[in-house]
Amino acid sequence: MSTITSTFAQSDSSKIILVIHGGAGTILKKNMTPEKEKAYHDKLEEALLAGYNQLKSGKTSTEAVKAAINIMEDSPLFNAGKGAVYTNKETQEMDASIMRGSDKNAGAVAGVSTIKNPIDAAIAVMEKSEHVLLTGAGAEEFAASQGVEIVDTSYFRSDVRHKQLKRVQEKEKMVLDHDGDQGSVDSSEDEFNIDYIEDKKFGTVGAVALDNQGTIAAGTSTGGMTNKRYNRVGDSPIIGAGTYANDFAGISCTGHGEFFMRNVVAYDVCALMEYKGLTLEEATAEVIRKQTEIGGSGGLIGLDKNGNVAMPFNTAGMYRAYITENGTMFIGIYGQ
Amino acid sequence: MSTITSTFAQSDSSKIILVIHGGAGTILKKNMTPEKEKAYHDKLEEALLAGYNQLKSGKTSTEAVKAAINIMEDSPLFNAGKGAVYTNKETQEMDASIMRGSDKNAGAVAGVSTIKNPIDAAIAVMEKSEHVLLTGAGAEEFAASQGVEIVDTSYFRSDVRHKQLKRVQEKEKMVLDHDGDQGSVDSSEDEFNIDYIEDKKFGTVGAVALDNQGTIAAGTSTGGMTNKRYNRVGDSPIIGAGTYANDFAGISCTGHGEFFMRNVVAYDVCALMEYKGLTLEEATAEVIRKQTEIGGSGGLIGLDKNGNVAMPFNTAGMYRAYITENGTMFIGIYGQ
Repeated sequence: MSTITSTFAQSDSSKIILVIHGGAGTILKKNMTPEKEKAYHDKLEEALLAGYNQLKSGKTSTEAVKAAINIMEDSPLFNAGKGAVYTNKETQEMDASIMRGSDKNAGAVAGVSTIKNPIDAAIAVMEKSEHVLLTGAGAEEFAASQGVEIVDTSYFRSDVRHKQLKRVQEKEKMVLDHDGDQGSVDSSEDEFNIDYIEDKKFGTVGAVALDNQGTIAAGTSTGGMTNKRYNRVGDSPIIGAGTYANDFAGISCTGHGEFFMRNVVAYDVCALMEYKGLTLEEATAEVIRKQTEIGGSGGLIGLDKNGNVAMPFNTAGMYRAYITENGTMFIGIYGQ
Repeated sequence: MSTITSTFAQSDSSKIILVIHGGAGTILKKNMTPEKEKAYHDKLEEALLAGYNQLKSGKTSTEAVKAAINIMEDSPLFNAGKGAVYTNKETQEMDASIMRGSDKNAGAVAGVSTIKNPIDAAIAVMEKSEHVLLTGAGAEEFAASQGVEIVDTSYFRSDVRHKQLKRVQEKEKMVLDHDGDQGSVDSSEDEFNIDYIEDKKFGTVGAVALDNQGTIAAGTSTGGMTNKRYNRVGDSPIIGAGTYANDFAGISCTGHGEFFMRNVVAYDVCALMEYKGLTLEEATAEVIRKQTEIGGSGGLIGLDKNGNVAMPFNTAGMYRAYITENGTMFIGIYGQ
């Protein structure tokens, strides 16, 4: 976690209008098959194009964020929606949030188990309620009342994710037996923990878009941590921590949520730009440096009002991609 | 909501070491009886002294915040703990958070119904878990496992608060009938809405302390909004929005939570101090000005590392108090 990788692109004739991520973590080329790599690449491209088509047809940045995130939520490849990880109780508890920069309106849901696309519920909270954050059964009731698609919990069942849960539980038991500490796992320990992190905190998805009205929107959707207990909620549904957008920039984060909450990472990027005059590239590099300092692994995507993009992370890799106004795409998986 | 009142005190020979609030809202002298005023005054003094005694005996700022907030949580006068307001389902759903500035560790609980002192559960999350935010039944299960006091839900039953719920429901029905809008209530409308606001969003408690190690801790505890639905969660349990502490300052907010979430108010004070070099007084005045701008009524208390205090609000009044190292107290209720 000592190296920070950042893909930064300055806008010129063709603005970047959509940037997405599918999670940061221990993504190493040696652990990938060409087939798996292609599957991720294709799905990121599909998500990019879904959002791009919204923007090109004059839709809002919120609609583009929804379209891009829906593709990733509907795929088993990412830890969000269909691919959401299992909790300790063998259920799914998903979180999502959205924020629109022009009026700083925001919506979020936390701990929902029956909403097919949690980002849709977050958008309904933003657009159809006076609230910002609804949780659990109440959030589901509200979402249903707004026509958001509800599914049976069996929709989220997955053998792959269930096996992942069992692996994580076995490893946590080993850690417990080893040092009697319920809380921390030393991520500096080689292979054992590389797997642990890969299984446990991986695959949150997010998107940030800039529309032809100059409005930025940012959204994030996640299944949280494998084997999580006590209805734990991470940074993804927290406005300021996992998601933020204003007139300066839009940010969506991914990584070890608790550290992103303590440093209010998404808003911190905007504050550094507004109050210290940093560029998006400088501000995002600074917050990831601060995350590294406190031991918070992960990354983020950011897009500013001029169409500059930054995608820094301190993990081995981050699924990330952007598309410019004229349709040029960048898709990346590994670090440097 | 056009006037901003701020009690600001510069530290000199005797540092301010504890500041508390019991909520901001439509508190007008003409609506108060001398008995009610005395009851609030006495309870704020009791809370101040409880925290002060912790600090004077060498305890941490976290322990002082706990002691002060516990007194207010145990009183029916405030919308937290014993005095928590009713939800639409005639239950209580309480939220609390704590943050320690020295290591920026934090803990929070949201939507808990059986924890006598929600701030104690937040402290347990901070000190005994690797998490920041636990919610609902899971938060209660974790709190119980850590020895935090659990009570039967009948503990929170209150005729006064139940009548308040019925009044709010009646008024919301009138608002609905009037303009067919489920969401917003125009708070600029006379007496009708003054009562409405007083009933609905009033009485969150909070405390910020500075201990003899120079560590700042900030905490907030609330019952949320009367008649709230859909497991709505406001700013109080959100690190960055309702509560924040670092080496610059500690902040606890009270008011219309959604607006405090959208502006990430508590962290914004710290960002303005760190990145723009503003003083605590300047930074807190700026964030309350921004709240007024977007229609967010409320206030906050802040304490910096030098023992300066600020207590700005844009409502008619805010229950607020501080105590200095040598025991001098200030207790305020109304605005200017």
